[in-house]
Amino acid sequence: MRIDVIDVSNDWLLKETSFDPQHLGKCEAIMSLGNGYMGLRSATEERYTGEKRGLFISGTFNRFDENEVSELPNVADVLEMEISLNGQIFSLADGTIQSYSRELNFMSGELIRHIKWTSPNGNDYRLDFHRVVSLANLHTIAQKVCITPLTGDSEIILSTGINGQITNTGSQHFSEGAKRFYDRRYMQLVQTTTQTKIDFVLTTDVTLSEPTDTHIAMGRRKIFSTFKTGVKKGQCLTIQKITTIYTSRDKHNEDLDTTALQAKGLASLKKQTALGYDEIASISAQKWQEKVWDSIPVTITSTNPRDQLALRFAQYHLQIMVPAHDNRMNIGAKGLSGEGYKGHTFWDTEIFILPYFIFTQSPVARSLLEYRYLSLPGAREKARENGYLGAQFPWESAWLDDGEVTPLFGAADIVTGLPTPILTGLIEIHITCDVCYGIWHYYKATGDELFMEQYGYEIIFDAAIFWSSRLEEGSGGMLHINNVIGPDEYKDGIDDDAFTNHFACWNLYLAMVYYDKIEGTSLFEKLDAKLGISNYYDDWKEKAERIYVQTSRADGVIPQNSTFLNLKEIDLTKYKNQEKVGSIYDDFNHDQINEIQVCKQADVLLLILLMEDDFTPEEKRANWDYYEPRTLHDSSLSLSTHSILANDMGDFSLAYSLFERACNIDMGPNMKSSDEGIHAASIGGIWQCAVLGFGGLRVIDDRIRLSPKLPKEWEHLTFYVWLRGQKLKMDVTKTSVQIENLTQTEVIELEIEGNTYIINDMLQVSLS
Amino acid sequence: MRIDVIDVSNDWLLKETSFDPQHLGKCEAIMSLGNGYMGLRSATEERYTGEKRGLFISGTFNRFDENEVSELPNVADVLEMEISLNGQIFSLADGTIQSYSRELNFMSGELIRHIKWTSPNGNDYRLDFHRVVSLANLHTIAQKVCITPLTGDSEIILSTGINGQITNTGSQHFSEGAKRFYDRRYMQLVQTTTQTKIDFVLTTDVTLSEPTDTHIAMGRRKIFSTFKTGVKKGQCLTIQKITTIYTSRDKHNEDLDTTALQAKGLASLKKQTALGYDEIASISAQKWQEKVWDSIPVTITSTNPRDQLALRFAQYHLQIMVPAHDNRMNIGAKGLSGEGYKGHTFWDTEIFILPYFIFTQSPVARSLLEYRYLSLPGAREKARENGYLGAQFPWESAWLDDGEVTPLFGAADIVTGLPTPILTGLIEIHITCDVCYGIWHYYKATGDELFMEQYGYEIIFDAAIFWSSRLEEGSGGMLHINNVIGPDEYKDGIDDDAFTNHFACWNLYLAMVYYDKIEGTSLFEKLDAKLGISNYYDDWKEKAERIYVQTSRADGVIPQNSTFLNLKEIDLTKYKNQEKVGSIYDDFNHDQINEIQVCKQADVLLLILLMEDDFTPEEKRANWDYYEPRTLHDSSLSLSTHSILANDMGDFSLAYSLFERACNIDMGPNMKSSDEGIHAASIGGIWQCAVLGFGGLRVIDDRIRLSPKLPKEWEHLTFYVWLRGQKLKMDVTKTSVQIENLTQTEVIELEIEGNTYIINDMLQVSLS
Repeated sequence: MRIDVIDVSNDWLLKETSFDPQHLGKCEAIMSLGNGYMGLRSATEERYTGEKRGLFISGTFNRFDENEVSELPNVADVLEMEISLNGQIFSLADGTIQSYSRELNFMSGELIRHIKWTSPNGNDYRLDFHRVVSLANLHTIAQKVCITPLTGDSEIILSTGINGQITNTGSQHFSEGAKRFYDRRYMQLVQTTTQTKIDFVLTTDVTLSEPTDTHIAMGRRKIFSTFKTGVKKGQCLTIQKITTIYTSRDKHNEDLDTTALQAKGLASLKKQTALGYDEIASISAQKWQEKVWDSIPVTITSTNPRDQLALRFAQYHLQIMVPAHDNRMNIGAKGLSGEGYKGHTFWDTEIFILPYFIFTQSPVARSLLEYRYLSLPGAREKARENGYLGAQFPWESAWLDDGEVTPLFGAADIVTGLPTPILTGLIEIHITCDVCYGIWHYYKATGDELFMEQYGYEIIFDAAIFWSSRLEEGSGGMLHINNVIGPDEYKDGIDDDAFTNHFACWNLYLAMVYYDKIEGTSLFEKLDAKLGISNYYDDWKEKAERIYVQTSRADGVIPQNSTFLNLKEIDLTKYKNQEKVGSIYDDFNHDQINEIQVCKQADVLLLILLMEDDFTPEEKRANWDYYEPRTLHDSSLSLSTHSILANDMGDFSLAYSLFERACNIDMGPNMKSSDEGIHAASIGGIWQCAVLGFGGLRVIDDRIRLSPKLPKEWEHLTFYVWLRGQKLKMDVTKTSVQIENLTQTEVIELEIEGNTYIINDMLQVSLS
Repeated sequence: MRIDVIDVSNDWLLKETSFDPQHLGKCEAIMSLGNGYMGLRSATEERYTGEKRGLFISGTFNRFDENEVSELPNVADVLEMEISLNGQIFSLADGTIQSYSRELNFMSGELIRHIKWTSPNGNDYRLDFHRVVSLANLHTIAQKVCITPLTGDSEIILSTGINGQITNTGSQHFSEGAKRFYDRRYMQLVQTTTQTKIDFVLTTDVTLSEPTDTHIAMGRRKIFSTFKTGVKKGQCLTIQKITTIYTSRDKHNEDLDTTALQAKGLASLKKQTALGYDEIASISAQKWQEKVWDSIPVTITSTNPRDQLALRFAQYHLQIMVPAHDNRMNIGAKGLSGEGYKGHTFWDTEIFILPYFIFTQSPVARSLLEYRYLSLPGAREKARENGYLGAQFPWESAWLDDGEVTPLFGAADIVTGLPTPILTGLIEIHITCDVCYGIWHYYKATGDELFMEQYGYEIIFDAAIFWSSRLEEGSGGMLHINNVIGPDEYKDGIDDDAFTNHFACWNLYLAMVYYDKIEGTSLFEKLDAKLGISNYYDDWKEKAERIYVQTSRADGVIPQNSTFLNLKEIDLTKYKNQEKVGSIYDDFNHDQINEIQVCKQADVLLLILLMEDDFTPEEKRANWDYYEPRTLHDSSLSLSTHSILANDMGDFSLAYSLFERACNIDMGPNMKSSDEGIHAASIGGIWQCAVLGFGGLRVIDDRIRLSPKLPKEWEHLTFYVWLRGQKLKMDVTKTSVQIENLTQTEVIELEIEGNTYIINDMLQVSLS
């Protein structure tokens, strides 16, 4: 069953116009609220079977036991409100829905639900729910509910508080801590992670616009109050619930003991309560304007209004997923919108998400890369454990010193009946290059030399040390990288992956370039003392020349790895058109898929996208024509990269359709795809499709290139990017591009359709 | 809101005739299935908000962390079935219920649900659900579901398996273990308790009567299969799901490693599957006949058919709550029907439940008392920790070596806003006498000398050693027991509780009686060597004479403790008529209640009931008249004891109304009272009301007494009891009693209305 409940009549609103109790996960995730400090799934106040409540605080990882890996714990729920209306518990599963809408307003970051409901006992009510996670005060959640009895006077009983019975799909990460009421009013619950001993203090206050008979209560892992009141027909009862959350992992709270943290939570709550819901929401909305919509909007004139909505969707989620406040934290593969991938950071950050921050909020990009620097001890430990030198970044990364946190087993193997081993943590090693690529990309776009000196060079050198130790001697004097997984995760245990080997080689050369660059400086002395790079230079040079890098055969096709082109071929139509991910696993197990010429995403094509100067136009074409038909895009990462590449290849309608599919991964009609959380990389990809794809912006080594090719559906595209310290406004149409330098402290050199331009203040160029 | 959904038109069936999604806990608990090895709450196959799924295996305690106490972990759920009918998930919250009934058949132990349902898309279906927990094979759960499409052909998709995401109200007691499919058919999940490292192996098999398209899957803590099939209009699709459960705590499985336990679970499942649902249910029903309904039924002819149903309800639950298979286990305060009281054993066993087993299944009573013997190490440890000698039994008891497991904090204090401290584990010390009373009661009724030699004497001696060390010197040469809680838990920190002191004194005298009895035997030598009893005898004697035991004042009223009669009095009407327990706590906190003449249950009255020979008729009357009006019966323990006593006092209508209220604790219209599980002590009390109360059976030291006084509503009462190795059938009317000795290996001497009779085979006596 596929239902599109997303109404796009207003391109600022993600709107649901009917209630589907069988597919709650969808809007819980795609309408989730947050601010980078926390992410709050948009579960409803009333409870439903199949709901998945979720509140996650960046960086607060915990490990349930030795059999599990570190994950972001699901924090106590504060949203729930049990509302009894004349003895009937409010639930859309009962009674009759007269009218319904739920909308996430990207402009303000506010979630609003309007319902007209007839209770089973025949009384009509209007219920309006408002909710915001403040972008201005990272610790604040605010709710406002207005209930208006329409048929007659109504007794209203509200039960609400803090519920710490929430788990991560059954794993409880918290010990129950103190519970208490202050002044018979403010409720507070402390919970402490079992392994990492992080204190969480949740403090909440509920006020009603009418006098109430109030009863306070505590249960196991739970504190709540019950308010009883009466409301006249046609009058509105307003409920306001304000919550603050602090943890002992917060940068400024690390030194506080639990009692001090409790006091801080209470004091902060009192301040927020003094503001009240409307003011909290308004201050937060103002912050949204400042940070995003006034400064770096992407504006599209398209025949399809979903396109504009999708870009706002992307910018909204990129903003709420990023822990910009703390460089010890990074972005999870599902942002902070669900338990999927346990809050872990993958290569998704550097390859799919980082470009957005590089070009729009470079300090945030820098913070994300600093996280990699701070987690070098774990990367070094991982290399050591595997018998290598240097820094080997974990495939999945959680807290700084966790090292590798990829789980060891996944779904059922349909042949053996046993759980499928997950090998990515052991052998998907290209992540180490991906991190370096992210650093290089950031550096090239920003020119942030200080970052390189503080963090960047050290990472790149230590990665090169890893690669040189990882290479294996083969026959004929070549060096190989055997037994890996490339970006195409359908294949494991393969040798000489085109992507991995090419990138490893690049990494070694990059290290040598930077070595040469800083040689003789005090920085060099420092890094040499720390890493011994002068001992490695010759080794890098000698080995880089001997790496077996896949090269194109006569027809231009580059083998994905040492065996791929010899594998059998099957009819992939069924899976190309799949409605859910992983449908090929219903018919084949992993070992069988290993023997088929089918890609989850195409290693060679991704390589061509990221390293375009290394390939001829003929090679690009040959590989595009070979691999695209063999690629199921069975990864949310695949669509955006292939859309950008399709645009490069001149396959404009495919480019647009892949862009639309990328948007649909979360915003689309598949009601199950986002249950575990939004797809952070794909959302980064949406922005990339617009700006790097159709907008045609690319930073290639020291060149900046702009080759806009708008799809036929688009008339106009405007976006803002920061390049080398200058903020540029780009106005693109099918026939022209206008670039305005809003900063004007430096000139920018830029290639458009092969011509180089110097931008002082403004440039207008007609497109061919 | 109070709704009585229990239909009693058939006195073998506990029947629910309408579905109330807001009060699921009621029938989940009172209709729960079990066999003493396991208890299974009767949650429905389809899921609802507010449901509380629960499966508990006796004796498998685990402790979540240092802040919590040992509790019975909630095991993975096997009941759930997601049933999609032509694309619509079956749920009574959607569509229209055309007809509905759910009944627990006490005769067979089978739970059956009949539903005719119109789906939201307008199709009619008949759904019949059957379920049984085998009384014959303790490890087996069997389900059968029949689905008949009535409107047209239907596509049916079933998703079901084993779901280990279940927690104890948020606390997860299990590490996730192996998951696997055997033969693409049998599903197995292993889970291991985190602290006590008990392996649980759940293996399940699902078969459908039509060929299916089957898909196997695993999730976190979850293994399940999806079956897709089509069914013609009017035809019935039969789904059969059989599950076996084994744990490494099982007596015969302790030496098995996980792999062997997995093999055992699978092999056993295959055998049960070969039998099939109907045969499993039939064999179990036969066992119910043999064990209970053919051998020890209580039969009542009453103007109120609920009375007969209540007795069957009681016998049913007493049977499923008792771990008769393993003397290392005891009965929890909620049986195995919920998380309430964490599966812990209280004095409820000896005072309220044990009499049923003493008189109907004495080997089971013996096993329950052996549990106390086996947990002596914990009792000795508790005494040591508190600075005393001998054995001090824990107020709440879990696994044998857990010692005291009472939690330290409870509900919110309405004045301070902090959780209320729970002091029972520290100072409710009468439990040690209660255990001795249970032993004495068992011994007097059965004459089981071997039990006394193996276990009984040692416990009683060691308890006496405890008491003599616990007594405190006061002024005037008296010995006091200060700072305790008596059975009336409204009062804490009191001195010289009438119940505790009287019982402690009795315990010392009992020890001396038994000391004198066995002195000179080899048993004496053994126990003296172990406990040093010969060093204590004089001490016991000297101290027993000096204990301050509350005696009646001029009007015959015995002070409940040293201060009670001086406390202030308030109008208790509001709380006497309370609809929910603990309503007095809404107006007063614990400290305030401590200052009021109000009893949760009346210590003095319970004392008079248990020690009737120690009080004059005038004392009994005076105390009854004083304390009953001051007693809120705010404990499920209170009603049955007070009913029996009311009958003794000649207050027949109060006796019957208290009996009815005792029945209503679980079976009655309060839809919330059983959410956390049934009230095991109260259920034992139902049987006691009938047999000890209206039937008038009492064992007083060496005398057996029968003083039947049937309530006016009852015409006839038949029950079976074992006394001193003889099985007696008792037929009681208002005017006569007929006693038949079914065993006839010994004669029984018995008092009826003051006259002593010898029963050889049969006795008939007219009542005055």
